[in-house]
Amino acid sequence: MARPPLVDEIDVIGVGNAMVDVLSHENDEFLHRHGLTKGAMHLIDEERARELYAAMGPGVEVSGGSAANTVVGVASFGGRAHYIGKVRQDDLGEVFAHDLRSTGVGYDTPLASSGPPTGRCLIAVTAGAQRTLSTFLGASVRLTSADIDEQLIMRGKIVYLEGYLFDPPAAQEAFRKAARLAHAAGRKVSLTLSDPFCVDRHREAFLDLVLHHVDILVANEAEICSLYRVHDFDAALQRVRGQCEVAALTRGEHGSVITNGAEVHVIDAYPPDALVDTTGAGDLYAAGLLFGLSRGLDLAVCGKLGSLAAAEVISHVGARPMKPLAELAGAVLA
Amino acid sequence: MARPPLVDEIDVIGVGNAMVDVLSHENDEFLHRHGLTKGAMHLIDEERARELYAAMGPGVEVSGGSAANTVVGVASFGGRAHYIGKVRQDDLGEVFAHDLRSTGVGYDTPLASSGPPTGRCLIAVTAGAQRTLSTFLGASVRLTSADIDEQLIMRGKIVYLEGYLFDPPAAQEAFRKAARLAHAAGRKVSLTLSDPFCVDRHREAFLDLVLHHVDILVANEAEICSLYRVHDFDAALQRVRGQCEVAALTRGEHGSVITNGAEVHVIDAYPPDALVDTTGAGDLYAAGLLFGLSRGLDLAVCGKLGSLAAAEVISHVGARPMKPLAELAGAVLA
Repeated sequence: MARPPLVDEIDVIGVGNAMVDVLSHENDEFLHRHGLTKGAMHLIDEERARELYAAMGPGVEVSGGSAANTVVGVASFGGRAHYIGKVRQDDLGEVFAHDLRSTGVGYDTPLASSGPPTGRCLIAVTAGAQRTLSTFLGASVRLTSADIDEQLIMRGKIVYLEGYLFDPPAAQEAFRKAARLAHAAGRKVSLTLSDPFCVDRHREAFLDLVLHHVDILVANEAEICSLYRVHDFDAALQRVRGQCEVAALTRGEHGSVITNGAEVHVIDAYPPDALVDTTGAGDLYAAGLLFGLSRGLDLAVCGKLGSLAAAEVISHVGARPMKPLAELAGAVLA
Repeated sequence: MARPPLVDEIDVIGVGNAMVDVLSHENDEFLHRHGLTKGAMHLIDEERARELYAAMGPGVEVSGGSAANTVVGVASFGGRAHYIGKVRQDDLGEVFAHDLRSTGVGYDTPLASSGPPTGRCLIAVTAGAQRTLSTFLGASVRLTSADIDEQLIMRGKIVYLEGYLFDPPAAQEAFRKAARLAHAAGRKVSLTLSDPFCVDRHREAFLDLVLHHVDILVANEAEICSLYRVHDFDAALQRVRGQCEVAALTRGEHGSVITNGAEVHVIDAYPPDALVDTTGAGDLYAAGLLFGLSRGLDLAVCGKLGSLAAAEVISHVGARPMKPLAELAGAVLA
């Protein structure tokens, strides 16, 4: 299949569950009282979302969604980025679309005009900048393969897919269609495992994807250990090595490890200016990694860009960068 | 008229235009391009709100509204507070109500089920933490005197009214009704002049209110100078002194001056931990002042509580306190 001219190329196209985050500061007792596992993502229905919201303290609303945060990061590095994900035609849907477009990310997935409201992720921020997520998928469940635009996918050097997309049933087909079209066009497919419990829910599908359909895998330590049902990071690393073109495994303050089979790079974390809110750390690591890979940079440099972006995003509340990452990247790229 | 038993008393009841704030970081060129006067509040219609929002960078949504911020501050000091203001039954209206109630502020103004959406205030934050406001009143214009609950007003030691309430025509009647009921019940009426341009729009009405209907006046330097059409702070101070029971005049980093006619107290500003966003500085000063007055504290102490609350709110993004003001107040009250 003929590749489109370079001028139309997009560095990264993210596909994911479109969400607005609602962040509030809570204590551990709050998590306990509501049966929430610290640090995890919980799927909740509309009624539980209403109950939990009523119990939460005053909130700050910011656009979120894992892959959406990542493509905003790619754009902040100076990359061309696009997003596919579903919101409803309501206030929060408008906020979501505005916040993507105003950062330069292309976004034209048709809005849902009926059905559940725009999805939201209730985030309890507890001591040590820990975040515990409760996700009401909302309109995200309306994403279908009809929303995957073939012409668009062909233009993207990398299509980046959330593991979370396996939660809304119809989105799995959208996920598979995007991967199929990308490969047919000679493009790369990247997957993030998203969350250890998400891996638990979809382990067989993810194992098959990693082996047969994913070029660039992004996972944190808990997720990759969950995928292979091992308790030791190195055991997971040895299992994934060579299973796909690139695997990037993040380990919080211990940095990350990137392997393309032959090479194994151990990358340090960047010390953040302050540790305020870890929401988005993995999403922004992926942004640096994918931006670097889309530009053909060395693996170690890609990892450093990931560390840099993660450090920026955990130094403030919210899962999207507040400083232009292209400026911060100067030191790494020089 | 018999006063209700003390156990049911409310320290402060705020009445104002209910707003959700949308904050984004912009540069001076943005203000210039959109004809915005730095530091001022501009009234805009729905179409202009849409245009301006489209031009703004990614935003953070937080509940706002001047008097609403103030009563949240009163609650944070440990006071009993209530709010009257109109939102619509939509996502942002739900956010507004949640954020008030979750801080302990009573709020039961009936929602508008038709008409314009919940009001929003687009806030461009520029260098030096300056904020420039563009307000789309939205559902606020539906506040009428029917929303002023006589039983509620009688329970409030102080009813606190925004000058901004003079912008939506029907709200003026609500304003006057609240003041009338409060005085009939032997309660205090407090007014903030809100904004120098708001004073320009309603100068004659405000001069009459200050002289005849207001017990506690809150204004910043620009507002009080605008009210009396003078260019010199001391000239304004001499004019307002004795016009109402208490006048509290704020001067940014130069602190504030409080007079009850006989006494004149010059109160220093508190140095904030950081200067991040001045949104809400005046609102939170009013919170400390009114909490102190409602508890019968000395004028100078009331002023210090105001300075303390203002310092807290300018040290982070958003117009509501992030730390419990009751804890911070320990040093002042000891």
